[in-house]
Amino acid sequence: MSAGDIERQSGRFITLEGGEGVGKTTNVGFVCDWLTARGIEVVRTREPGGTPGAEAIRELLLDPSREEAWSDDAELLLVFAARAQHLAERIRPALDRGAWVVCDRFTDATFAYQGGGRGLDFERIRTLETLVQNGLQPDLTLLLDVPISVAAQRVARRGAQLDRFERERETFFEAVRAAYLARADSHDRFAIIDASPELAAVQQAIEQCLSERVAAWL
Amino acid sequence: MSAGDIERQSGRFITLEGGEGVGKTTNVGFVCDWLTARGIEVVRTREPGGTPGAEAIRELLLDPSREEAWSDDAELLLVFAARAQHLAERIRPALDRGAWVVCDRFTDATFAYQGGGRGLDFERIRTLETLVQNGLQPDLTLLLDVPISVAAQRVARRGAQLDRFERERETFFEAVRAAYLARADSHDRFAIIDASPELAAVQQAIEQCLSERVAAWL
Repeated sequence: MSAGDIERQSGRFITLEGGEGVGKTTNVGFVCDWLTARGIEVVRTREPGGTPGAEAIRELLLDPSREEAWSDDAELLLVFAARAQHLAERIRPALDRGAWVVCDRFTDATFAYQGGGRGLDFERIRTLETLVQNGLQPDLTLLLDVPISVAAQRVARRGAQLDRFERERETFFEAVRAAYLARADSHDRFAIIDASPELAAVQQAIEQCLSERVAAWL
Repeated sequence: MSAGDIERQSGRFITLEGGEGVGKTTNVGFVCDWLTARGIEVVRTREPGGTPGAEAIRELLLDPSREEAWSDDAELLLVFAARAQHLAERIRPALDRGAWVVCDRFTDATFAYQGGGRGLDFERIRTLETLVQNGLQPDLTLLLDVPISVAAQRVARRGAQLDRFERERETFFEAVRAAYLARADSHDRFAIIDASPELAAVQQAIEQCLSERVAAWL
């Protein structure tokens, strides 16, 4: 099939993953533009959210005014409730009509943040993944990764000693990163993009990845 | 142990189940009063809801102003998210300190309404039940049941023909009732209370059931 031939039975599902400040939002846009320029109908979306119902669940999840914290299980079930709605109302219908879906975070983020960062049992996450996704997985996941040395330099630039809260946050984000990298290591759909250089270099790496991986699907 | 001895390692968990209009709310109060009169600390609660977070999920579930209906999976996961929060914040802490919990509906309602009434896969409900409850089950479930003959008489009293919507609702509630009765048949913790007579007779039956089943735990 040529790049101009977008007659497909099903579209492709691309996700971008990574920690805070790795440039996910900018690069989701870059991927969408790259695909659109090749004549592909692209649905750009994000998690948690992506539909009115799922965004309402996102608000419940993130609402800082609530006097009652979510229990681990409740948080996990809310994340997957939003995902189930997103899949049913937006992702699956788009893929079914042949559109491509580019999503800012998906289930890998649940494994990284709730599993790696917060220490929730990976097996419970897998149970819900199986229940909700019914075998659907991204075709390609770009993991925007910043090496620990760069993260450490950024922390050092702030100067002085880390207080306990900053140290805890560092530990948390290292656990998130480790979980992301472990998933990338065990799933062929991942491409790790070094997000520590300047944006132009990062996007060159993304473009090379898309040329190699996506061109074959066009 | 005597009825006055309420030193326990764990309280007991009693649920009331049944379709619409069987008098659940009134009889939850009756059960609470019966236990309180025996010196038991009782926590009266309901599902979905029972904590601020779980009630917020209830509002999301029931909000008729939403332009987007919940997908089957999203609804099921929201129900269990509320249940997880309810268990973590209210039910388990109460049982752990030796209080008894009397709850207006619990997971049997999910099997009856989402499973029996709406046709969702029972296996998916069981997966979430296992995940969220981790083995916890009610010690006693009072199923307030109205026989089909009584329901039919009530419908007949309305007179005239049923329209399509009423017929569908009748089919739905018969499926809910059948699912409740099937669960009662396969779980010893159930007591079926005939809720078709006048309230005094229903409460006499409830009292007899409590005397037989609960007295042994006091």
